[in-house]
Amino acid sequence: MKQSELFTKSFRTFPADEEAQGMRFLVRAGFVHKVMAGVYEYLPLGFRVLKKIEQIIREEMNAIGGQELLLSTLQDKTVWQKSGRWEDKVLDVWFKTKLKNDSELGLAATHEEPLTYLMKSYISSYRDLPIFVYQFQTKFRNEIRAKSGILRTREFLMKDLYSFTDSEVQHRAFYEKAKGAYLKVFSRVGLGDKTFLTFASGGTFSKYSHEFQTIAPVGEDTIYLDRKKGLAVNKEVLREEILADLGLKRGDLEEVKAVEVGNIFSLGARFSTDFNLMFKDQNEELKPVIMGSYGIGPGRLAGTIAEVFHDERGIVWPKTVAPFQVHLLELEKALGRKLYGDLQKAEIEVLYDDRKISAGEKFAEADLIGIPWRLVLSKKTGKKVEVKIRSEKNVKLADVKGVLRLLKNKG
Amino acid sequence: MKQSELFTKSFRTFPADEEAQGMRFLVRAGFVHKVMAGVYEYLPLGFRVLKKIEQIIREEMNAIGGQELLLSTLQDKTVWQKSGRWEDKVLDVWFKTKLKNDSELGLAATHEEPLTYLMKSYISSYRDLPIFVYQFQTKFRNEIRAKSGILRTREFLMKDLYSFTDSEVQHRAFYEKAKGAYLKVFSRVGLGDKTFLTFASGGTFSKYSHEFQTIAPVGEDTIYLDRKKGLAVNKEVLREEILADLGLKRGDLEEVKAVEVGNIFSLGARFSTDFNLMFKDQNEELKPVIMGSYGIGPGRLAGTIAEVFHDERGIVWPKTVAPFQVHLLELEKALGRKLYGDLQKAEIEVLYDDRKISAGEKFAEADLIGIPWRLVLSKKTGKKVEVKIRSEKNVKLADVKGVLRLLKNKG
Repeated sequence: MKQSELFTKSFRTFPADEEAQGMRFLVRAGFVHKVMAGVYEYLPLGFRVLKKIEQIIREEMNAIGGQELLLSTLQDKTVWQKSGRWEDKVLDVWFKTKLKNDSELGLAATHEEPLTYLMKSYISSYRDLPIFVYQFQTKFRNEIRAKSGILRTREFLMKDLYSFTDSEVQHRAFYEKAKGAYLKVFSRVGLGDKTFLTFASGGTFSKYSHEFQTIAPVGEDTIYLDRKKGLAVNKEVLREEILADLGLKRGDLEEVKAVEVGNIFSLGARFSTDFNLMFKDQNEELKPVIMGSYGIGPGRLAGTIAEVFHDERGIVWPKTVAPFQVHLLELEKALGRKLYGDLQKAEIEVLYDDRKISAGEKFAEADLIGIPWRLVLSKKTGKKVEVKIRSEKNVKLADVKGVLRLLKNKG
Repeated sequence: MKQSELFTKSFRTFPADEEAQGMRFLVRAGFVHKVMAGVYEYLPLGFRVLKKIEQIIREEMNAIGGQELLLSTLQDKTVWQKSGRWEDKVLDVWFKTKLKNDSELGLAATHEEPLTYLMKSYISSYRDLPIFVYQFQTKFRNEIRAKSGILRTREFLMKDLYSFTDSEVQHRAFYEKAKGAYLKVFSRVGLGDKTFLTFASGGTFSKYSHEFQTIAPVGEDTIYLDRKKGLAVNKEVLREEILADLGLKRGDLEEVKAVEVGNIFSLGARFSTDFNLMFKDQNEELKPVIMGSYGIGPGRLAGTIAEVFHDERGIVWPKTVAPFQVHLLELEKALGRKLYGDLQKAEIEVLYDDRKISAGEKFAEADLIGIPWRLVLSKKTGKKVEVKIRSEKNVKLADVKGVLRLLKNKG
């Protein structure tokens, strides 16, 4: 797209009300806009990043058998009363509202209850199981203090997957698959090296739950990491008997700040018991469905990526989630237009800076926005194109056809 | 996908609490699930239809220069006070909620205010204009009575586009383009023949606004249609002087029930004045930005399509919005599997009914779900495949390769 048509522009200064440097770049470059504490709007550049992340997650959820659906925000009080989570003192992040007739509704902070209720219409036999469903849906959480930009917000997009299985064995098999899918997601968005499976407390139905924690100084969490083993525990479970159980030694653990980018829970029969979600097994015996839940917040992931991948000049997006693959800076009109046309023909996502501003401003803004490939054509470069990879230092002159071929193959 | 893995199943009976026949099919076939009056969940089949419609709208909005973004649901009271629409007596469909500190928030029913406010950061000169932005975002409207299934709900996905222009002339040019884009959308989803541009009252800033009304007995609206001219007026503007202005004659008008599937409004300087959203024109004179808004509800569109396209046995989806292109019924395992593999290889979206139920049940459910192409392979058909188009009566025997080729070309 032509940058002259993109309605956002970079601001000259950083926002006064953001602390984390990645977040400061996101606001300054026009990826997101703050509505109020804990509520952000995604502007075109940020929206593109969000959609890229969403699509990567979708592909991995589909690959493990997930079926996509879309539940509602507005929640029926009577459904939540069945699990005892309607009361604010039990679930303390509720936003509630009212119909005109004064009856109360909740805004969903999570979806175990409505989904368990829904499944009563569809699960009655072991033949109906397993079922894995997921959605990308906006969650609302009435946090007392919203902070860290888009890392912890009161309204956020969440991918939540729920598993319905006939036994601990069937549950465990999927749970391990989900772990693998999550690690693939974090690897594909560029956070693989910095994201660690972290043991957390499991509640009534399983020994542990698992978090995926990305090391970042801005993180709200503290984890204890065995780098060699690639495993961590969180504060809740930092106890001798648990470390022994996991084969970890206190002396090998490093205390680091991290952002929780995903979590997976075994729910056992907690909700199926509350909702009487039962199935008949092969012996015609009635048993409760065994459930699990699996969450990733695409917005938090975008924010984490910005915190992990930036330098003093701006963001350095991994190519899989960058808003565009190529930032083409026009220093000479005819040459720029020709290459823009060629890139479009090759179906390469390109932001074409065709604005009438100085070369220096264009270079600075390209660094700020952080698109992986920067291409510049000018009379100086002749028939060659100046290529700069955002994460590298050197600028190279290259043959236009060769660059097009390379981009088309590498995406 | 294999139908044995799809978690939804068709119910044997119609829902007791839905009146419209299309809606009754949608619930019975497992496209949607009712949470409460005016709130629905989209199950996998319904979600696929919703996404198809969304993508068609997205392509048409991009084609007229729309930039996609995502605004928030939670709304800041102070922003809405600027336009005077915070009060429930002014905007009577508000859902409101509260932060922990007791300060009030609104759930967005529309987005003129936050977007006008946002644009203050980005518009200052005529060079910044025009700007066209849109989103697919969930709206909340506290309707006293929600009815007609997914046609009028309290929570719904909406595509809302907003235009920001430097003059009535620039506004009008885009407004006409948007009209064209809307007609393309309705045509692409199969409603072209039944959807009419309808003149409605325009408010302070323009003579008329425009609705797009689809003729359907289930419609809540009454329009007065000149079929020959392909134009209609709604009740508000059914007055002699207006008919004369539009070149319509009362005698040529037919009174019909219709569903409003889209609407476009000229907003003039209403919001830019409230928010002081001004720009400097070429003579350095300060002028208010001229705005327009343009809405389509993808869920309502899905519901309208189901009302318009069904017969006594089920839904008859237009192929552009069908959840799958092909419904392959397995009557003989080896043959079915082979063709399923071939269809997948050819990247044709196929629902493969591999369940161990009777042929009669499979045929009945195929009619109920309403996928455009039904393919059946059995020992009886030998090397040929039995092809039935959902909207046609006849069943044909055809060569497998020929059918694959045809599907690949026709989509």
